[in-house]
Amino acid sequence: MTGYILDELTAEDIAAEKAAYAPIADALRELAAVSIRTTVAPEVAAEAAERLREVHAMLSSEVGGASYGVRFSKDGVGRPWGNAVVGLRNPVAPPLDIQRDDDGRIWSDFFLGPQYEGPPTLVHGGVSALLLDQLLGEAAAEGGKPGMTGTLTVRYRRGTPLGPLHGEAKMTHTEGVKTFVSGHIADAEGVCVEAEGIFILPRWARGETNDKLRFD
Amino acid sequence: MTGYILDELTAEDIAAEKAAYAPIADALRELAAVSIRTTVAPEVAAEAAERLREVHAMLSSEVGGASYGVRFSKDGVGRPWGNAVVGLRNPVAPPLDIQRDDDGRIWSDFFLGPQYEGPPTLVHGGVSALLLDQLLGEAAAEGGKPGMTGTLTVRYRRGTPLGPLHGEAKMTHTEGVKTFVSGHIADAEGVCVEAEGIFILPRWARGETNDKLRFD
Repeated sequence: MTGYILDELTAEDIAAEKAAYAPIADALRELAAVSIRTTVAPEVAAEAAERLREVHAMLSSEVGGASYGVRFSKDGVGRPWGNAVVGLRNPVAPPLDIQRDDDGRIWSDFFLGPQYEGPPTLVHGGVSALLLDQLLGEAAAEGGKPGMTGTLTVRYRRGTPLGPLHGEAKMTHTEGVKTFVSGHIADAEGVCVEAEGIFILPRWARGETNDKLRFD
Repeated sequence: MTGYILDELTAEDIAAEKAAYAPIADALRELAAVSIRTTVAPEVAAEAAERLREVHAMLSSEVGGASYGVRFSKDGVGRPWGNAVVGLRNPVAPPLDIQRDDDGRIWSDFFLGPQYEGPPTLVHGGVSALLLDQLLGEAAAEGGKPGMTGTLTVRYRRGTPLGPLHGEAKMTHTEGVKTFVSGHIADAEGVCVEAEGIFILPRWARGETNDKLRFD
């Protein structure tokens, strides 16, 4: 499998990469949230777009591969920093900060702004599916078998409001290379969306022990 | 239902809004794709982040509501410009440009860059679910019943590569307030991900004719 990169970075190197680039992703997230709603005059908007293109030129002067991939340091800790849900260098990702309980439950408290809207004032149904896919996948991995999604089923109980939300997932059982996981997203009033997932251990990973691969 | 805004904009007003603000979203998409991968020196990264915060201040000086909502002009044409999948003012959205065939089929050709990554070099499984939710929802609406997602089931046949992709969906049948839709995402080699959805006509829309609501 290409793209899983085992690099030589030390803890200090990793902290330096985070300190240098995470603020860019943070600034781009804030920009996404405001750019959707701004009503500034056309000439101000044009000036803003021009300045953004200038920053793009700055950042384009030195670029790595076509995508970030998933990088591991020598201690086995993964850096999925380009990931569309948890990637701290990815402005598309909220990003979710994944927590792990001793009983294998995975959870995250997060905030979804206007860039995640579908129906007015509500989270896009597909965004809920996106986040649940990640949460369920993390729960499958926590069960010892990191997998690719096989099937994801999402049931929408009611609209999920934009704002502060909670997501969680837990493995229910395994059958051979299949790991079964369920989870949900809730607001302060309770569950809005439920999901069940079947994750398949990829062929390249079968027969290996995976307890050294963690994504913190 | 809040957030569905019928406004007084003329075709010229709408063209002007698009001309003013779409370039900002375009620039932010390009920035997302490069910011994940840049390897510029920390001082260049810090300068870039600072400039982004300055642009944020410019755009924040005049802002509309908490989210964009879905706006309709007098002729019934919708502007879901904040939508997380099709919103041309939303940097998180690729955005998908939805096409409609005479037989009710909905389709879109689109490109997914590094900000949509999950497994290395592959589209995040949840991003496929996100896009399919929108495509299926559009197909349900094309069948005359715009709905909220009730259940979405996504089956992953194989990894979906980042790059140029094709998505499509079509209504299969209806049962009362439920509309059944299926669709898929494919690359040049064929189908990567399939989905089935059940969309529910929201209570507020039942009994109304919805043929005047279009999202172009």
